Amino acid sequence: MNTILIKNISLKNRIVDVLIEGNVFKQIEPEIKDVNADKIIDGTNRAIIQPFYNMHTHSSMTLLRGYGDDMRLFEWLSEYIWPEEAKLTAEDIYNGTRLAIVEMIRSGTVFFLDMYWHHQEIIRAAQEMKVRASVGVTFIEERGKKEIEDNIKFINNFKSPSNRITINVAPHAIYTVGKDLYQELYLISKVRGLKLNTHLAETVNEVNDCKKANNNLTPTEYLESIGVLDENTIAAHCVHLTEHDAEILSSKGVTLVHNPCANMKLASGAFNVPLINKYDCRVCLGTDGTSSNNNLSMLEEMKFAALLAKVSYHDTSLLSANQVFAWATKNGAETMGLNAGKIKEGMLADCLIVNLNNDRLIPNNNLISNWVYSADSRCIETVICDGNILMENYIIPNEEEILEKAKRKIS
Amino acid sequence: MNTILIKNISLKNRIVDVLIEGNVFKQIEPEIKDVNADKIIDGTNRAIIQPFYNMHTHSSMTLLRGYGDDMRLFEWLSEYIWPEEAKLTAEDIYNGTRLAIVEMIRSGTVFFLDMYWHHQEIIRAAQEMKVRASVGVTFIEERGKKEIEDNIKFINNFKSPSNRITINVAPHAIYTVGKDLYQELYLISKVRGLKLNTHLAETVNEVNDCKKANNNLTPTEYLESIGVLDENTIAAHCVHLTEHDAEILSSKGVTLVHNPCANMKLASGAFNVPLINKYDCRVCLGTDGTSSNNNLSMLEEMKFAALLAKVSYHDTSLLSANQVFAWATKNGAETMGLNAGKIKEGMLADCLIVNLNNDRLIPNNNLISNWVYSADSRCIETVICDGNILMENYIIPNEEEILEKAKRKIS
Repeated sequence: MNTILIKNISLKNRIVDVLIEGNVFKQIEPEIKDVNADKIIDGTNRAIIQPFYNMHTHSSMTLLRGYGDDMRLFEWLSEYIWPEEAKLTAEDIYNGTRLAIVEMIRSGTVFFLDMYWHHQEIIRAAQEMKVRASVGVTFIEERGKKEIEDNIKFINNFKSPSNRITINVAPHAIYTVGKDLYQELYLISKVRGLKLNTHLAETVNEVNDCKKANNNLTPTEYLESIGVLDENTIAAHCVHLTEHDAEILSSKGVTLVHNPCANMKLASGAFNVPLINKYDCRVCLGTDGTSSNNNLSMLEEMKFAALLAKVSYHDTSLLSANQVFAWATKNGAETMGLNAGKIKEGMLADCLIVNLNNDRLIPNNNLISNWVYSADSRCIETVICDGNILMENYIIPNEEEILEKAKRKIS
Repeated sequence: MNTILIKNISLKNRIVDVLIEGNVFKQIEPEIKDVNADKIIDGTNRAIIQPFYNMHTHSSMTLLRGYGDDMRLFEWLSEYIWPEEAKLTAEDIYNGTRLAIVEMIRSGTVFFLDMYWHHQEIIRAAQEMKVRASVGVTFIEERGKKEIEDNIKFINNFKSPSNRITINVAPHAIYTVGKDLYQELYLISKVRGLKLNTHLAETVNEVNDCKKANNNLTPTEYLESIGVLDENTIAAHCVHLTEHDAEILSSKGVTLVHNPCANMKLASGAFNVPLINKYDCRVCLGTDGTSSNNNLSMLEEMKFAALLAKVSYHDTSLLSANQVFAWATKNGAETMGLNAGKIKEGMLADCLIVNLNNDRLIPNNNLISNWVYSADSRCIETVICDGNILMENYIIPNEEEILEKAKRKIS
């Protein structure tokens, strides 16, 4: 079995040795001796820290980065994004996803929960590049019966290429998927043991339209009324929630994914941190797609989340560095049922090696504060996922070829 | 005279050669021949872009990075920041400023407008490290007559060590400096031709206290009434402005400095972009100090500014990438009377060389959008200020020694 020994590295302010055997943390001790490791990494002046689990993205939208920004929402979607998306081929999606994965690795993310088209290509890219992914098989009624049937067939026949890759059932949103299909997809997700991944309560319009069409029910109340919300559900955005909504989401055990950059850039609104804290909802963090962000950096996302909460609710102590760090790391792993998200013996070997000799991390009064509020991707030297080294000393294998292929200029 | 020739670099989507002679851009043409340059830089797959002018910071507060975050404001200031600040020696300030300058160079900033203590040490660090700076000589009534007199003497006797370094007269704020001293400092700034640099309308408390103490005048109205606002004034924060305030600031030609990260982290509020646009106020961007940010990245500051404006005023088109980029670059240079902030023949040779083969800048649909919304410091390869190369291919001379010295652990 492959073994990696990391020597003299800082873990929560203690200097330790870390032994990875296969895909797990085998041993974490002040000094590990008598091990004939395949690889030894010098951790001096470095810290080991858990990586990010990006719980909502549309990874291959990297291809549309910087395309039609600063526009009114409907004009942007209808004149720019949708026509361009319609032109994307399977090969584009593959190349766009590979670019996204380079970006994720460089910024410390080892898992992403995706929702887009051409799921096979996203799976192929994630599998090749050895990250973890839960790839959404995405449903929008308008795309026609044939695609819905094909998607369901794909789900029923899916065999994962590795322990790192799963799929999820992704009805896009209540305004694109009707009651019957939601309920059918819910049953499929239950039978197959898959997560149900959907957008929820992202905009005021969505809430108002839903109330008009459904006897004054909010989107959350509506999904509850059709019986599709439970601990299996992952709901992205959740910006516009009532007290009753928060109560439902908490009692049903739904996972809420906060996407601060997208919610700010698209002027959707501020996630209600006091409310979700009050009802003790389970929360994770996601970047959303590159069209509405415009990158996949969970480091940035943490700072945006914390600062947006403080200014929106006039409370400097709201959403501390520690809380938002948990949202960005272990909460995602837990939601996905991964035995990961902490640097601990027996857990899956996902970790980052961070260079403490970096201007953004000096002085080291509080590493988590520095990490959330000061760091950028330059601080991340090495990325390990499932016991595999994805980036070592800033080098990602094949990066040059991946970037070249992704330089598809939108015409 | 020292000459640098940058070959085949992208400038606003055109491929050009750029010749720097001494401290100015001498020639920018599709092809520059027959020049015997001291140094030739290959600009292939790179872009040349103007650097940042950080118009409000307390640079040496880097030493307090990550110290007592997420606390209530008064507890944080009184129990953490002020007692620690009181312990900082001149040598600490020198080392903290040097760390700050490393961070600024890495993130593309070549000028900073400072306000802190031990101005001599800040000047020394900036001069040695060849950045531009306007160093505030800071006044707080409470620190006593001796310091005020020493400061005034310093201003009257100041001789700049180079064309890159100036000083400014910095009455801290209306709640720390009384009317008489403000007026005296205003006169001194006029006589000496120096900028008057002050905090203004940062918090609701400041506004309310001012109104109580001054016949219901807002901080802006109060400063106008004592006659110290004109085109010479640089006012940081300016979060809580009335229509009348904006009208005054615009008509007097005051420069407003927006500090979005600090305003969010300290829950001060959102800068009123529609209002300042309506009155066509002159605006620049600043990071504030590292205690309230916690880094000095103008790249981050641009994204925070743009996204905060959009979400706060429910308008996705508000504060476009182009507008916020101008705030962060040429507006600062213009305010300081520098013939800089654009890549143009005859202007001062301040620029960044950006690597376009970077995941965050691919695809290159719109470089300014990518720059504002996606990039991080990893994209910046080379930094030139006043014709001097401060960082080349990611290397800053003496960086290791500077970081070591700054690793002063707060006890």
